[in-house]
Formats: sequence, structure tokens, C-alpha cells
Amino acid sequence: MQAMSVTVREAVFGLLRDVGLTTIFGNPGSTELPMFRDFPADFRYVLGLQESVVVAMADGFAQARATAAFVNLHSAIGVGHAVGSLFTAYRNQTPLVITAGQQARSILPFEPFLYSEQAPNLPRPYVKWSCEPARAEDVPAALARAFFTAMQRPCGPTFVSVPVDDWDRLCTPPPRREVTITVAGDPSMLARAAVMLRAARRPVIVVGASVARDGAWQEVIALAERHQAAVWASPLSSRNSFPEQHPLFAGFLPADREQIVARLEGCDLILVLGAPVFTYHVEGHGPHVPKDASLVQLTDDPAAAARAAVGLSIVTDLKLGIRALLEAKAPARPAPAAPVRAPSVPPDRLTDRYLLQQIAALRPPGSIVVEEAPSSRGAMHHYLPMLEPDSFYTCASGGLGHGLPAAVGVALARSDRKVIALLGDGSAMYSIQGLWSAAELALPVAFVIVNNRGYRALDEFAAHFGLATPPGTHLAHLDFCALARAQGVEAVRVSQCTELDGALRKAFAATHPVLIEVCVDV
Amino acid sequence: MQAMSVTVREAVFGLLRDVGLTTIFGNPGSTELPMFRDFPADFRYVLGLQESVVVAMADGFAQARATAAFVNLHSAIGVGHAVGSLFTAYRNQTPLVITAGQQARSILPFEPFLYSEQAPNLPRPYVKWSCEPARAEDVPAALARAFFTAMQRPCGPTFVSVPVDDWDRLCTPPPRREVTITVAGDPSMLARAAVMLRAARRPVIVVGASVARDGAWQEVIALAERHQAAVWASPLSSRNSFPEQHPLFAGFLPADREQIVARLEGCDLILVLGAPVFTYHVEGHGPHVPKDASLVQLTDDPAAAARAAVGLSIVTDLKLGIRALLEAKAPARPAPAAPVRAPSVPPDRLTDRYLLQQIAALRPPGSIVVEEAPSSRGAMHHYLPMLEPDSFYTCASGGLGHGLPAAVGVALARSDRKVIALLGDGSAMYSIQGLWSAAELALPVAFVIVNNRGYRALDEFAAHFGLATPPGTHLAHLDFCALARAQGVEAVRVSQCTELDGALRKAFAATHPVLIEVCVDV
Repeated sequence: MQAMSVTVREAVFGLLRDVGLTTIFGNPGSTELPMFRDFPADFRYVLGLQESVVVAMADGFAQARATAAFVNLHSAIGVGHAVGSLFTAYRNQTPLVITAGQQARSILPFEPFLYSEQAPNLPRPYVKWSCEPARAEDVPAALARAFFTAMQRPCGPTFVSVPVDDWDRLCTPPPRREVTITVAGDPSMLARAAVMLRAARRPVIVVGASVARDGAWQEVIALAERHQAAVWASPLSSRNSFPEQHPLFAGFLPADREQIVARLEGCDLILVLGAPVFTYHVEGHGPHVPKDASLVQLTDDPAAAARAAVGLSIVTDLKLGIRALLEAKAPARPAPAAPVRAPSVPPDRLTDRYLLQQIAALRPPGSIVVEEAPSSRGAMHHYLPMLEPDSFYTCASGGLGHGLPAAVGVALARSDRKVIALLGDGSAMYSIQGLWSAAELALPVAFVIVNNRGYRALDEFAAHFGLATPPGTHLAHLDFCALARAQGVEAVRVSQCTELDGALRKAFAATHPVLIEVCVDV
Repeated sequence: MQAMSVTVREAVFGLLRDVGLTTIFGNPGSTELPMFRDFPADFRYVLGLQESVVVAMADGFAQARATAAFVNLHSAIGVGHAVGSLFTAYRNQTPLVITAGQQARSILPFEPFLYSEQAPNLPRPYVKWSCEPARAEDVPAALARAFFTAMQRPCGPTFVSVPVDDWDRLCTPPPRREVTITVAGDPSMLARAAVMLRAARRPVIVVGASVARDGAWQEVIALAERHQAAVWASPLSSRNSFPEQHPLFAGFLPADREQIVARLEGCDLILVLGAPVFTYHVEGHGPHVPKDASLVQLTDDPAAAARAAVGLSIVTDLKLGIRALLEAKAPARPAPAAPVRAPSVPPDRLTDRYLLQQIAALRPPGSIVVEEAPSSRGAMHHYLPMLEPDSFYTCASGGLGHGLPAAVGVALARSDRKVIALLGDGSAMYSIQGLWSAAELALPVAFVIVNNRGYRALDEFAAHFGLATPPGTHLAHLDFCALARAQGVEAVRVSQCTELDGALRKAFAATHPVLIEVCVDV
């Protein structure tokens, strides 16, 4: 038996250093303080003023770095405030290692102040693994397991609850280990898929977020071009996985069963790459794919494979899986009809369409868009095409409050890029405290608020249910410039088309955070 | 079998009307819209801009009205954002009936957008009961059960998940029912406690939040006076349960085992009324009560009775229990030594002590204080005594983010009173969006921000663990006046003693919300 030679704190910081997690996102409380005794100089603490902000910043940071991020929360209350962002991180399949303090072991029988009752259950079901080790000396190994679990495909959050008195106890540091994270698909099934693809008269490709996550951008382009396959973005995809001005790019599938079938009508093979089959937002009926069409899904998510409504599902890393498909030749096929591009918008009304068109025209090369502007999503698809890999992030959960802090996290990870946060007014208010962190970190994010004075996406959705005026959708008396300046972020309001370009140019050139409140015509 | 004669929506609104829950706190989304078709004119929708705000407003409203409040949240994301406030409501023992939308039943197999996986588990363990009815027609009865369960002692939140397609289905309305909420203690055990009390040489009383919740203010005063018992407030009590300038009021017990024993030294009977035995914040050792002291607990919380560290526990409504004790006579006892009151603070430095003293001097009669200013808690105990029943609320959980929106909820319930929200800067930032709801509802809350530019309570706590400078405790570049005005709330900054009284007088006299940012010396 190896001697207990280091403190739990030393072992944990050693582990975090080994796996490259030297940025700690958090908001501290009394039950976390002993973790930070002699805080190492090579670590950085990133403070968020509410835990929903903390976890969403970590989510953006993790996605942009393509590895896990580390989070420390305050006991039950901190985890509780974070559950919404945790739900989004789980749906985003973002690897997060989340820790929270717990009261001292000896007083747990008395349900003390700040006690987290059933701590490992609190973040469920939106964690892949969750634990409060029974002994202090098991904490470092639990954190190693949390990291390796978070990184397995599909990635996701994991959770470890740490009693406050554990940090100064002695333990044996866990050994350094390596755990693979990539699985190649069954070669015989990939070969079968390749035969189906080759035999198809008119194949189409549907791309989802795992294409971006697995870095298969070039492979998808090669496969689509070889097979002359139209490429659709999967419904509500949280990442961009295909150049949206490529002649083969057909557009964005709606999250509606009948409409998906209508869009894909005429194809005989649907190859779904890195997306569920399919994500629906509204109730639908009838078949999931056009009559006589086959479907093949490549996915790194075993659960998405198991629950797909139709077709052959192959569990595989996307890059490896698509490369296997690229080993087969393709027959000569005619190119699909090129999609009609939206006409340009004249500067006569300050609509969201005009705004998005001007962002597209003026954004610096390599810009990253982090979007949470639900009512402008359609306009964005038409007027702000994503052209490069890893240049678009939105939340996969449908919840509000992710975009603003996620943009801060992305900017922290990618200091080489301009980050543009495209946010609805309702969305921005959910996590307005994130502006403080942008100012504190002096990150050059351009926050563009599409202020339409309400939850307009909801007003539009009400029509789907035949409702006239739902309560609680109008947002008057909000001044986003004042909210930004109050937290240390420069801000400017734009109410006319003529003011827009100058404001965008200035924000895009700035080396500090700038907020532009755009009062759009609706 | 009774005919299915009404829609689920009609049955639910009828039930809510019957039990007096005609105010709906929420933030709507697509999965909730059909609930609000033909929204009845006798109902009111109170919008919060983040669900932690929504639930904390409902919590304040419910506590101030002493009955349940109704909440509607948006699917998994809305519940997720609310879990922190739900934890606090659970610890506050506040009756809340919380509903959330769910996707349509027919598409649940496909894990649709906004799907709440394991919906009833998401708010656990901080709900007393949680359910997603298996059939649409069972929704109204589930909500009736949720209401009756929330109202049982100890009160707490309950949860019902409602699929979006349920609202238009037909059902049989549940019958009107009555369920008692008061339990009287075992008469023989109360008689035994009365004998112990009578025999005690020097009894002391410790009062907790359930005294306030059960409306036993007068009964506790009568009991203390009859027995010449010093009265302590229980550690971290979330309500005021005894007049804090009464000659028998001894002060506030700290949440620390050794210090409690020291404070209670010399007594031979400790009568704990409506509080746990005891709430600890830090690890402690040794006995829980002074040597040779007996302890009797009256509590309406069976779990608190079961886990009390020592003594005889009697489960009872507090008012009924104390009245039973009042049936016995008391021996002649000398009065305990009157506690030393804090000396008055001169206007030479703008400290939190001076601020609290001036609030005490200038507050209108009947004012209600909702407090979340952890580093000023001690100063508040000395300089801002609560004198009347139901005039003080704070959170029982120790989490931040409750106070600001809870004050809005209290003000909505008590239009006859001035509500003073006493908030730390860190606390206020957690739920700063609540100011928008105060403006929207035009509620005359006086928000007093004790701005000490950081999480000072944490800096002070760090000393307990021997830490010098914990990371993440300093809050620079925040302008609370701008944050208030940006949301439609009038604001004024006070940086000197000479400015304070005028600002307080104006805010206390206002018929609309006013925020005072007090930049205190630390």
C-alpha cells in the first residue's frame, strides 16, 4: 500500500494541471474556501456573478478549446442556480468537470446550513456521472474519473461533491493515466453504408453538431462533392458543419416532421452525419422520411443511435466514419439544383435582416458568432452565412441564458478571433451579469442586442397554437446600453440604418468588450 | 363514471380559483402557451426575466400571504434555472405549486427540442412531491394533490409536469375537497414538557421561523414572560419570532456548536420552539447543550424532530403547542439580566452600522425588511431590531439571489406595508433582473444596496479557515444606480452620512420602487 503523501488539494491541483484544466470557473462560498488555500500561480480563477453564467462561460470555453473545462460551485445553492445551464451543456454535449463544496463530514447528520442533501442527485439527470466520495482520500481519483467520463463520446458534464474538510486530508495521488476518446465504427457496417451510398440515385446529407465536434469539416465537403449530394443542416443544430455558401448547401431543416419529409422529397438515401434522426420542436404525424427513402445515420452518440426513428445507425467517430465512406468511389450524378439565395436588403428599415446582412458584410475574417436570438434565427440563416469551421455556436437545449456568457467563454479560449454575440433582448436579460465578466476579463466581444422589445419568437409561436396574445411576452423599459455601462462595458444604441455600419465597424475593431443595442423594426 | 365534461385547462383554472391561487408567477415558452388560451380576466400573470427570479418572487408572495403561490415554468430549462431558488424555498418551507410544460406526448420517444427528460426528477430533492401524470385527464387532480401536499406542515414546493397537448383534452373536474393543515401535539407529551418547564430553575427559550409561520407571536411572548425566560433567536432563523427590544430578548444564537453552548451556559432547560436543534454553519465538537441542561423541542417538522441531536421532540403546530404549555402555571423566578444594547453610531463614517441605525430610525411603522446582506447581518442584529410580527424575511438556505425578488413578492402581497430590501452588492447581482419586475408592477419597494464592493462575508469567513486572499471575492466596476434606471427603477447613490437620511426618507415615502446604492466604508 502506497503511503498517503500529499493533501487532497495538492493531488487535485496536480491532476488538473496534468490534464490541462488550469482555468477554474466559479463563484466561491464558505464551503469551497479551503480548496483555494495557496492558490497556485499557474491557475486562473474566472468569476461569474451567478452560477448560470459560470457554467455557460465554461461551456463556451470548453467547446472552443475542444476539451473539458473545470467548474467549482457553491454547495447546493450554486449547483441549483446552475442546473439550467447544466441542462444546456448536457444537450450541447460539452465536457465539463463540475465540483461543488459540501459541509464538513462530521456535521452532516445535523443538516447544517448550506448542506447539500443528496448532493450527487441534484444535477441529475443532466450529468453523465455524479459522486460524493465516501472518504476524503478518494476525491482525487473521483475527479480523474469525472474528467475521463466527461471526455468520452458523447461528451457531457460530470459532477463531484467535495466536503469542505477534505482538502487538508492526506491521500495517495492517483496514477497518471490515458483513456481513449475516439471509437471507430464497425468496418462491415460502414462498408454496407458505402455500398448503399454508391447505389443511391439521389443521396442527400444531413449534417449535425458532431461533425463540427469531431473536426470532420473537410471530410463532409469531400463526401458531398464526390456524391453530388445536397447538404442540409440538421434541425436546430448547435454548431456549423458545412460552408453555408457552398453550391451543395441546401439550407436548414425545420424541426417539424412533415416539413422535413417535404424538404427531402425526391431523395432515395438520407445520410445523417452527427445528428439525431430528427430533432422535432412541434408535434408531427406520418412518416419520418419520404416514402421509399432509406436512411443511414453515423453518430458518436449511442443513445441517439438507439432511439432514431428509422434507418441503419452506426456508432462511430464522425471523422473516421466519413473517411471510411470516402474509400468508396461514386457514380456520376447530376449536380442538385443550386438553392436560391436571399436578395439583398435595402437600408430603408432597421430590420433584423438588414442588421444580419451588415454583420455578414463587415465581420472580420475568422469571426465566431455565438447566437441566441430565437426570433432572428431564420433571418440569420438567410443573411449571415457561416463560412468557416468552428465559427458558430448556439445552444442545443432551446433554453435562454446561454449565449451571452458562452460568448465570453469562447472569447477567453480564442483570443485570436473576434467573437460576435448575437442576442435577443429577452435572451440577454437571462444572463446579463455575464457582461461584468467580459469587462473584468477585458475580452473583445461584440455583443449585438437585437432589441425587439419582447419574446417575439414566442408571439410568433403562439400562432402555431392559435393564440392571439399570450401573457408575459412584452419587455418594456429596458436600456441595454445602461445595463452594459453599469458593468463596465462600453455601449452604443443604434436606431437607424445609417448608424449601423459605423457602430459595427467600431465594435469589430475594438480590443475590449462593446455592446451595440440595435432597436429593430418588427 | 362521470362524463369528461371540461377541458384540462378549464378544470385547472377552476381549481386554482377555488384555492385562491389567481396569481401566476412565470416565464412562458412554447410548451406552456396552450395553458394560456383565453387567459381568464380574474387571473394575473407576473413575469420574471429569469426563473430564479420567478420562484423567489413567488416565495416572498407565498410567505407574506401565508398560503401557497402558483408558478409556471418553461420545461426543463425553466425548472433548471429555478433549482437554486427552489432549494431556498424548500429550506424556507414555503408552499409553492410549481408547474412546467413538457413536449407533446406523441413525440417524447424522439427526445424533442425542449424535452424534459425524467421531468419529475429534475426538481428533486427540493420538492415534497413531484409528478408527470400518465394521462392528460389526471392533470387537474395532480395539481389538487400538489396544492394540498405543499400546504401540509412543514410546507414546501411541489411539482407537476404538464405535456403541452394536455390542456385541450377533456377531463372530469376533481371534486372540491378540504384537507386540514394543523396538527396538535400529543397532549401527554406536552403535559410532560409543561412539568419540565415548571420545574426548571432557569429555562431559556430559542425561537425559530415556525413560530412566525404558525402565527404564535403573542403566545411566545406570554410564555417567556410567565416563566421569566430569556429568549434567543435560533441560529440563522429566516423569520422574526420575538420582539427584539423586549427586555427578555437575549439576542441571536450563532450557528456554531461551542458558541451556542457558551451562550446558553447556566440554564437547566432549553425550550426550542419552531427551530432545528441546531442549525450549524461550521464544524463543531463536544456537547450540543450545556452540561446538565435538558432540551425540549416543539416543531411542526417531523424530520427536524427525528434528527435533533438531543432532547425530547414534540411534533405540533407551534401556536397549539405553546398554548398547551401556557395552561400550566409558573413558579416565581428572578428576571434574567437584561442584555446590553449597542451604543448609537455617530455620523462620522458611512458604515453599514450607521446605515442600519438610520433605517431603524426612519422606517415607517409596519415596515417589512427582506434581507440578504450577509456581511451586515451582525450589524443588523444590533442596529435594526425587528419589533412587530411578520416584519422580517431572509433565506434559510444560505444561498444568494433570493432577497431582491423575494422583496418584490412580499410587496405584491402586502400593499399596505413599506417593504425595505436590504441587499449586499454580491447578493443583488445574483437576481438583478428582479428590479424589472418591481418597475413593471410599480411596487413601492425601497431597495437598499449595501455596496462594500465584494463578497465581504466570504473574506471574513476566509479567516476562519486561515486563508489570506481567496480568489473571486472582489466586485469592481458595478454601478447599481445605472442597473436600476436601466430597468425602470429610480435610483440614488449615497456616499456620505449627510446624504443618507434624505435619501432614505424619500425612498420610504415613495409610491414606486426606489433603489439607494450606499457606498459603505469597510
